[in-house]
Amino acid sequence: MMRPKIYLFGDSITEESFSAGGWGAALAHHFSRTADVVLRGFSGYNTRWAMKVLDKVFPAEMNVGNGRAPLAVTVFFGANDACLPDRCSAFQHVPIDEYSQNLHAIVAYLKNRWPSTHVILITPPPIDEVARLLHRYGEIHSDLPERTNEAARNYAKACVTVARECGAPVVDLWSRMHQFPDWGKAYLRDGLHLTLGGNKIVFEEVIGKLKEVGLSLETLPADLPFTDAMDPNDPLKVFDQMPTTDFKMFRVI
Amino acid sequence: MMRPKIYLFGDSITEESFSAGGWGAALAHHFSRTADVVLRGFSGYNTRWAMKVLDKVFPAEMNVGNGRAPLAVTVFFGANDACLPDRCSAFQHVPIDEYSQNLHAIVAYLKNRWPSTHVILITPPPIDEVARLLHRYGEIHSDLPERTNEAARNYAKACVTVARECGAPVVDLWSRMHQFPDWGKAYLRDGLHLTLGGNKIVFEEVIGKLKEVGLSLETLPADLPFTDAMDPNDPLKVFDQMPTTDFKMFRVI
Repeated sequence: MMRPKIYLFGDSITEESFSAGGWGAALAHHFSRTADVVLRGFSGYNTRWAMKVLDKVFPAEMNVGNGRAPLAVTVFFGANDACLPDRCSAFQHVPIDEYSQNLHAIVAYLKNRWPSTHVILITPPPIDEVARLLHRYGEIHSDLPERTNEAARNYAKACVTVARECGAPVVDLWSRMHQFPDWGKAYLRDGLHLTLGGNKIVFEEVIGKLKEVGLSLETLPADLPFTDAMDPNDPLKVFDQMPTTDFKMFRVI
Repeated sequence: MMRPKIYLFGDSITEESFSAGGWGAALAHHFSRTADVVLRGFSGYNTRWAMKVLDKVFPAEMNVGNGRAPLAVTVFFGANDACLPDRCSAFQHVPIDEYSQNLHAIVAYLKNRWPSTHVILITPPPIDEVARLLHRYGEIHSDLPERTNEAARNYAKACVTVARECGAPVVDLWSRMHQFPDWGKAYLRDGLHLTLGGNKIVFEEVIGKLKEVGLSLETLPADLPFTDAMDPNDPLKVFDQMPTTDFKMFRVI
């Protein structure tokens, strides 16, 4: 049987999530014997562009043969939608009402394809405007960043609202990061993208949401016998007892 | 079209390769828009046990429907086969002749299933025996480690020979690490498993072998338009020009 999959769909904060210490790699490591964590991050994308590529990110072939519904899909957009419409990243801006509609449509698309799949929304992170300018994003001459924390907050709130309306789990990353006063330095590398600490938060929050919907090492069987389940005097025995079609076991935690 | 895949098949050094700074995650990050890096590491496994699970690690469903041959499979066993037969990890030991036969059989199995797939062998790393004992592996009372560097060298040589006989690319990790005098501390965490530096070497060597067989960011098209390929005045244009079935482009490097 094919190993089940968890898809990570989002923008650059997803695309770079397998870099050293990244939250995507941490998920893959956590589920190393259990589920494949599949990277579908597209740097710079907003929900409008995400809508244009849904059929290619989740191609029809996924349902062919013995294709199984993904266990879960994280949908992590909004940081680009929230770019201000009158500054240098305006071409990425999506008005907040359209952002909400697009998120609704993405969730509906995924739930329509795979009713059993858990779609987990993640809000955009906060924005450290001073750090954005220090890293030379935004209007250098006017000292105005291309993103503001206030806009990020509004898009995060809209994302939480969509999640409530859809009955989908949501990681309110904007609020979660604000629980720590020094969030700008602690969690954000350039005022937007994640530090190791920021990655750790996303990993822990996603793991928590997965657990809430019943997806954890306790509930998902692992592939093939663990070495500590073998009889040192006859290690082959466990393999000879495997059913021909599949072999799953639970890790002792 | 489904994104092509690179499988990592091996023991604990593969299973933990998506931990922070791990070589597997680094590959997934490198190919983040290009190929899925699929983790199939099984801690403690030797080639004898690997042979028992081949049909489950690479199930028949992979060929069903529009299943595509993997681009490449790394086969990274030997560290457990090389456990000494008269010490505490004896149950993992596989005689060196059987190790060679098993590696041959694994390569033949994969090439038979997918003739176009590049099978890349990786030798076991060297063993720092003092570090093994410090980490309390081996016979504590007799001060004899359960693995020796001499045995690892012999299994590495056997792996290189198998690769030559099969015409398969091989990463001679044992020899590569010995190029640096302080390899034990620099590359190995506990005398066997990889440090960040050791992970970096495996990543670079595997990337190098993939490139030699024609698999690189220059030759593998990436999924969906890059943001810098969009017209800021009409970003949707590039999506409207996408063919309905597929969209690939090359990253400008």
